[in-house]
Amino acid sequence: MGSNVKGVKVGDHVGVGTYVNSCRDCEYCNDGFEVYCSKGAIFTYNHVDLDGTITRGGFSTYIVVHERYCFQIPKDYPLASAAPLLCAGITVYSPMIRHKMNQPGKSLGVIGLGGLGHMAVKFGKAFGLNVTVFSTSISKKDEALNLLGADKFVVSSNEQEMLEVSKSLDFIIDTASGTHPFDPYMSLLKTSGVLVLVGAPTEVKLSPISLIHGMKSISWSAAGGTKDTREMLDFCAANKIYPEIEVIPIQYVNEAIERLIKRDIKYRFVIDIENSVK
Amino acid sequence: MGSNVKGVKVGDHVGVGTYVNSCRDCEYCNDGFEVYCSKGAIFTYNHVDLDGTITRGGFSTYIVVHERYCFQIPKDYPLASAAPLLCAGITVYSPMIRHKMNQPGKSLGVIGLGGLGHMAVKFGKAFGLNVTVFSTSISKKDEALNLLGADKFVVSSNEQEMLEVSKSLDFIIDTASGTHPFDPYMSLLKTSGVLVLVGAPTEVKLSPISLIHGMKSISWSAAGGTKDTREMLDFCAANKIYPEIEVIPIQYVNEAIERLIKRDIKYRFVIDIENSVK
Repeated sequence: MGSNVKGVKVGDHVGVGTYVNSCRDCEYCNDGFEVYCSKGAIFTYNHVDLDGTITRGGFSTYIVVHERYCFQIPKDYPLASAAPLLCAGITVYSPMIRHKMNQPGKSLGVIGLGGLGHMAVKFGKAFGLNVTVFSTSISKKDEALNLLGADKFVVSSNEQEMLEVSKSLDFIIDTASGTHPFDPYMSLLKTSGVLVLVGAPTEVKLSPISLIHGMKSISWSAAGGTKDTREMLDFCAANKIYPEIEVIPIQYVNEAIERLIKRDIKYRFVIDIENSVK
Repeated sequence: MGSNVKGVKVGDHVGVGTYVNSCRDCEYCNDGFEVYCSKGAIFTYNHVDLDGTITRGGFSTYIVVHERYCFQIPKDYPLASAAPLLCAGITVYSPMIRHKMNQPGKSLGVIGLGGLGHMAVKFGKAFGLNVTVFSTSISKKDEALNLLGADKFVVSSNEQEMLEVSKSLDFIIDTASGTHPFDPYMSLLKTSGVLVLVGAPTEVKLSPISLIHGMKSISWSAAGGTKDTREMLDFCAANKIYPEIEVIPIQYVNEAIERLIKRDIKYRFVIDIENSVK
């Protein structure tokens, strides 16, 4: 630990998220939105850092990170559970906070129930929201309602079910990565409702019917800044929110990738590096 | 005037905007956003009112309107100038206020310089913003800069000019009605910037590059509520903001339509009904 580091001490648990550096001098860095650094944040994996080295993230014997990008993991919070918070967790937490979706009684829609979606449901319920999950497959219904505590489950291809939730949502988090229609979801938003994309669809296409009425917005969001991240970790510890994870050794990583492609994971793999290299 | 009407007296000047009725009981009406009434606002022209009559707006000998939808025109404010405020004016004023674009020093982009666009420029300058006008045609440059007071004029097909304003805008008002690309404009927004559509493009298509970075949003807006409208009228009177108009008699209306199609109007026709029917 460098002699000028404050706020953490040797032996503390810290986590590192999706970025390890930024200019620390622009308006975004100054506002705690380092991930949107105007000179570009340095990402944790396979990115060129300011000193020319290539970042290797957690796939390395050790990692040196400026304290600004190290997040104290609350005492007693399981380390394996903390890992997905620093990517999937913050990616859904940050837009929810920004759009004031931590006010009890509001209604949240979650499109897609994977690593990001399941965290959005957990945060939604912790914030006191009414949560509706949208999925292409009925197979996720039981877990959505009973394991994750969602209030409603809608199969997105079922027009009748979609119609029943028309104009009922304040906010939708769209975690689906593939190309999919947006108009049906825009019609589920109340006036001045917002759909936030946190996945990476290949194209977004909207028809005028979605557009003209109701001050609706579509917005995008990527991970979150250091301020939100610290707040989220404390919130998860205080409210006992834990991602659903499957801990694996590094030796299992190729099979894990195969299973990810088949979507056979509930809901995040976490690689236990320490025990893998013992 | 009905005996229970308050706030106006016989002889006052009042204006009527794009809607003449609403349920007056839903959350939107209660918040002064009657145009977004959850039961649907009753529009001023050619719409079925709650009593089954067809609305005829200003194309009629007289009109009976509930005081809620009548806006007092400030004393000495020219009536002909007030007319476009109640449609074009409020349509650009309302999203500017909602997105906090009345804070001096912010940067505004205005796409299209017609009835709506020229009012957005005037409001922008009155709010102390740095205003850039985007047009397909260089022919509007002189008026944009010298008559309307814009700070910058960009021909949207000129890639070099577009590149020079990259990531420089807090907010863009898109008044263009035809189909046009959105990606080039999204790249002009700063992080967390917003593009608001007030026109009616046939389709909105965005590519991932526009989407993933920078918490950007695209939003829609239609006219504005009664609260914003009253505020705007007072603001225009206090700041001597007047739309650029050409007053015509009703007998000229067919030629006016022809000229509208050819975009040969700076910037709004106003029909003088009183003098037309004398």
